[in-house]
Amino acid sequence: MPDLADLGAALSEGALTTEPATMEAYRRDWTQSDTAGMPLAVVRARTAADVQETVRWASAGGVPVVPRGAGSGLSGGSNAVDGCIVLSLERMRAIEIDPATRTAIVEPGALNAEVKMAAAVEGLWYPPDPSSFEICSIGGNVATNAGGLCCVKYGVTTDYVLGLDVVLADGTLVRLGGQRIKDVAGLSLLKLFVGSEGTLGIVTRAILRLVPAQSPRATLVATFATVEVAARTVVAIGRTLRPSMLELMDQASINAVEDYQSMGLDRTAGAMLLAQSDAPGGARAEEIAHMEQMCLAHGSVECFVTDDPDEGEMFAAARRAAFPAIERRGSLMLEDVGVPVPLLPELLVGIAAIAERNAVEIPVVAHAGDGNTHPIVVHPAGDAAARVRAAQAFSEIMALAISLGGTITGEHGVGRLKRAALPDQLGPDVMALTHRIKQALDPKGILNPGAGF
Amino acid sequence: MPDLADLGAALSEGALTTEPATMEAYRRDWTQSDTAGMPLAVVRARTAADVQETVRWASAGGVPVVPRGAGSGLSGGSNAVDGCIVLSLERMRAIEIDPATRTAIVEPGALNAEVKMAAAVEGLWYPPDPSSFEICSIGGNVATNAGGLCCVKYGVTTDYVLGLDVVLADGTLVRLGGQRIKDVAGLSLLKLFVGSEGTLGIVTRAILRLVPAQSPRATLVATFATVEVAARTVVAIGRTLRPSMLELMDQASINAVEDYQSMGLDRTAGAMLLAQSDAPGGARAEEIAHMEQMCLAHGSVECFVTDDPDEGEMFAAARRAAFPAIERRGSLMLEDVGVPVPLLPELLVGIAAIAERNAVEIPVVAHAGDGNTHPIVVHPAGDAAARVRAAQAFSEIMALAISLGGTITGEHGVGRLKRAALPDQLGPDVMALTHRIKQALDPKGILNPGAGF
Ligand SMILES: Cc1cc2nc3c(=O)[nH]c(=O)nc-3n(C[C@H](O)[C@H](O)[C@H](O)COP(=O)(O)OP(=O)(O)OC[C@H]3O[C@@H](n4cnc5c(N)ncnc54)[C@H](O)[C@@H]3O)c2cc1C
Ligand SMILES: Cc1cc2nc3c(=O)[nH]c(=O)nc-3n(C[C@H](O)[C@H](O)[C@H](O)COP(=O)(O)OP(=O)(O)OC[C@H]3O[C@@H](n4cnc5c(N)ncnc54)[C@H](O)[C@@H]3O)c2cc1C
Repeated sequence: MPDLADLGAALSEGALTTEPATMEAYRRDWTQSDTAGMPLAVVRARTAADVQETVRWASAGGVPVVPRGAGSGLSGGSNAVDGCIVLSLERMRAIEIDPATRTAIVEPGALNAEVKMAAAVEGLWYPPDPSSFEICSIGGNVATNAGGLCCVKYGVTTDYVLGLDVVLADGTLVRLGGQRIKDVAGLSLLKLFVGSEGTLGIVTRAILRLVPAQSPRATLVATFATVEVAARTVVAIGRTLRPSMLELMDQASINAVEDYQSMGLDRTAGAMLLAQSDAPGGARAEEIAHMEQMCLAHGSVECFVTDDPDEGEMFAAARRAAFPAIERRGSLMLEDVGVPVPLLPELLVGIAAIAERNAVEIPVVAHAGDGNTHPIVVHPAGDAAARVRAAQAFSEIMALAISLGGTITGEHGVGRLKRAALPDQLGPDVMALTHRIKQALDPKGILNPGAGF
Repeated sequence: MPDLADLGAALSEGALTTEPATMEAYRRDWTQSDTAGMPLAVVRARTAADVQETVRWASAGGVPVVPRGAGSGLSGGSNAVDGCIVLSLERMRAIEIDPATRTAIVEPGALNAEVKMAAAVEGLWYPPDPSSFEICSIGGNVATNAGGLCCVKYGVTTDYVLGLDVVLADGTLVRLGGQRIKDVAGLSLLKLFVGSEGTLGIVTRAILRLVPAQSPRATLVATFATVEVAARTVVAIGRTLRPSMLELMDQASINAVEDYQSMGLDRTAGAMLLAQSDAPGGARAEEIAHMEQMCLAHGSVECFVTDDPDEGEMFAAARRAAFPAIERRGSLMLEDVGVPVPLLPELLVGIAAIAERNAVEIPVVAHAGDGNTHPIVVHPAGDAAARVRAAQAFSEIMALAISLGGTITGEHGVGRLKRAALPDQLGPDVMALTHRIKQALDPKGILNPGAGF
C-alpha cells in the first residue's frame, strides 16, 4: 500500500483530507444508502494534474477510486467503498462560453445550472435539464448521461457532448473530440465515456454544444381520473407532436407536493399531465391547443393553459419538487424504469398492482413523453418488514420494465443499487462484452468498482 | 485455412460466390481505388445466421472479413483486402415501421431512401440524409455515422440509432438497446459500434428513431463574390439561427454541375449558399427573411427565395449532383475535413492556397453550417506527376484542418484512404486507447483490417 502522505504532497495544497467529518460528508450520494463504505481519504482535486496524480497513486497501490461530482446521484454511483479514495471534482468548476463556436468549455464540477446561466448571458442555451439542475455537476451529468424535462424534444446529455478530457485508469489524460460539430475520425470513444458512471475514466473537462436560446414556452396542465388515461393521452400526443416537455404526476405525488409546499395542484386528480410547447411564433398556441384537444378527447377532467412564463415555471417547479416532497414520507427506493412509449399505460398499471400486492406506497412521477418513469417505493423508516416488502416491489418493478422491452434505468444510472438487475436486462453476452471493455481500459479494476455493471 | 465449401454449405442457398465478375464488382467502394485487394469469396448474406456462420468460419481460419453495404463509401472502407471474404449485407433489406413507438426496425442492406419512404407512408420522417441517400445502405450509414444536409439542424446518424444487433468477431450476436427512447443501463456500447467502420462488429439489424414528418421548407439561394465572404455569412447565420440546411458550393463546383446538367445556377458567382428553413407556420418566412438580410448585409450579390417545395428540391438536387459532376473532370481524391464553424473562412482560404501551390484543381462543396467541407482534389487520369501533386494537396488539406482544431473526416469515415493522417489528429494516447478496444473486441484482427484506424 503506497503512502497517503506521498499522495498529499503531490497534490494541490489542501486537496487531500482524512478528516472524519469530511469523509462522512463525502461517503454517500443523495440516496443516503447505509451500504456505503468508509474511504481511506477524500481528494478534492483543483486541477486535472491532481486527478492524474491521484489515479497514478491509486493504480500503483491497487486502491479503488470513486469519482464524485455533486453527490446528487440517485443510484449510489458515488457511494464510497471501503478503503477507497473518494475523488471529488467539485472544486474544478471553471466555465468558458465561446459564442462563436456555440460551445461551453467546462470543468466537471460546474453545476448544470451554472452552465445554463453562463450560456444565457450570451443568448445561448444548454438544454439538458435534470430536475436536480441546481445541485448536480456536469461531470456527474456526463457520467450518467443525465436526462431531464426537455429531453423529450431536445435529447439527453450525450447529444450535447462534443469533447471530453478523460483521465484513464493509468493516469494518462486523453483529449477526445473538440469544438467541431461533426467528427467521425476513429472510434466513437467520446460516446463510450458518456454514461460510463466513472468506471472507465474520470472526466476533467467537457466541451458542450449550445443552441440558440429557447423560444418562449406555453404551458398546459391537464388532470385525469386515472394514471392509465393520462398515459394513453401521452401516447397519442407522442405520435404526432413534439412538446418541449411532457411530464406526468400521479395522485400520490401531487398530494406529496401539496403537503410539502402548496402549489395549488388539484389533490383530487388521479393524474396530471404537464406539457409545454416552445414552437416559434403562432405555432406555439397551435401546438398547445392541439394537445389540449387531445387531452379533452381522451377524457381529461380539466385543462388549464397559460402563456405566462412565470406561471409555467411554477408548474415545472412543482414537478421538480416531487422528490424532496416524497422524501418526507419515509425511506425511499427510487426507480427510473423506462419502456417504449406505447407501453407506458401497461407499465403504470403494473406498478399500481405491485404496490398493492406488496402493501407499499409507490407514488409515480414520469418524464412521460420519453416513457421514462420514477416510481418511488416509500417505506416507514425503521420498519424492517416494510423494508423487505419495499425491496421486493423494487425488484418486481425492474422485472416488469424488462418484460415490457424496457430498461431498469432511463437516466439515473445503474450505480450500486440496481446492479443486481442489470444482467436480467442485458443478458450474458452483453455483460461479457461490457467486462471485456472494462478489462481493456481498467485492468486492475480500480475505477469505481462495484458501480455501473 | 478452412474449406470455402464448408462455408458455402453452412450458408443460405447461393449466398457464397467466387465467380470472378462478381468478385470484381464487390472489390471496391465508390472511390474505385486501385489499391483494393482480391477477395477469396463474396458472401451475400440473407440472414443474421449467414453473417454469424461467415464470421465463425473466418475466425477459425484467421480470414479477414470486409463488411460491405451498398459500396457508396468515399474512403475505401469496404475495399477488399487480399484473401478476404467480402461480406455484403445488400440482400438483407427488410423494413418494418412501428408508428406507435415511432421507430423503424430495418435490416442493414435497406437503402436510406427506402427507410425514408417507408416512414413517410406513416407520416414519419427519418432525418439523416447523406447526398447519396438513394444509393447507400443503413448498415453503411451506421458504420460511418453518416451525416448529410439536414444534420445542421437534425443531427447525424448516431442521434437516431436506438438499437443494434451486432455480430461480434467470434460470431456471437449481441442485441443492444431497443425501442425505448432513453436507456442508460450499462455502458454505451451501442454508440461505440456507430461509426466503427466494420472494425468491431457487423450490424445485422438497426432500430431507428423516427420523428413526425418535416414541416414544409422554404429555400434561399444567395450568391457571393468569394468563398470567404460566403463562409463569413455562414458563421453569422450559425450564431443565432437554426436553418434546416446550410450548404455551400464554390465557383468550380457550380460550373461542374452546370456542365453536367444545367440547373440554372449562376456560373459567375464566386460561391453560392443554399439555405432552407422548416420552422413551423409563419416562423418559416421570418427565418428565411432573416437569413436573406444577413446574406445581403454580408455582401451577397443576389438572393433568391422560394416557398415552392419543387423549386427548393431542385436546388438541393443540384447540390447533391456535385460529386458525380466533378467526377467527370478527372480522377478524384475526396476530402471530408471539418473545423469549428468560425474557422470555416480560414479553412477555405487555406484550401485555395493549397490548390494554387500544388497546381491542382480543388472544387469545394460543404455542409457549411456544420463546418464540414468536401474539397475534391481533381487530377487528370493517367498523369503521374499530377497525381503526386494531388496526393500532396490531399495531405496538406488534412494537416490544415488538424491545425485549425478540426478533423480529417466529418462524415465519410477514415476508411483505408485517410488512415495515414489519423495519428496526426488523435495523437499517440488516443490511438493506443483505440487499439486496446480493438484488441478486446477482435483479438485476431479479422474484422475489416486496415480500415478505420
Ligand atoms: C431531486 C433530484 C432530482 C433529480 N432529477 C434527475 C433528472 O431529472 N434526470 C436525471 O438524469 N437525473 C436526475 N437526478 C439524479 C442526479 O442529479 C443525476 O444523476 C446527476 O447527473 C448526478 O450528478 P452529480 O454531480 O450529483 O454526480 P454524483 O452523484 O456525484 O455521481 C454520479 C455518478 O457519476 C460519477 N461521476 C461524477 N463525476 C464524475 C467525473 N467527473 N468523472 C467520472 N465520473 C464521475 C460518479 O462516480 C457516479 O457514478 C435527480 C437527483 C435529485 C436529487
Ligand atoms: C454521391 C455521393 C454523395 C455522398 N454524400 C454523403 C453525405 O452527404 N454524407 C455522408 O455521410 N456520406 C456521403 N457519401 C458517402 C457514403 O454514401 C456514406 O459513407 C454511406 O454511409 C456508405 O453507405 P454504404 O452502404 O454505401 O456503405 P459501404 O460503402 O458499403 O461501406 C462503408 C463502410 O461501412 C462498413 N459497413 C457497411 N455495412 C456494414 C454493416 N452492416 N456492418 C458493419 N459495417 C458495415 C464498411 O465496411 C465500410 O467501412 C456520399 C457518397 C456518394 C457516392
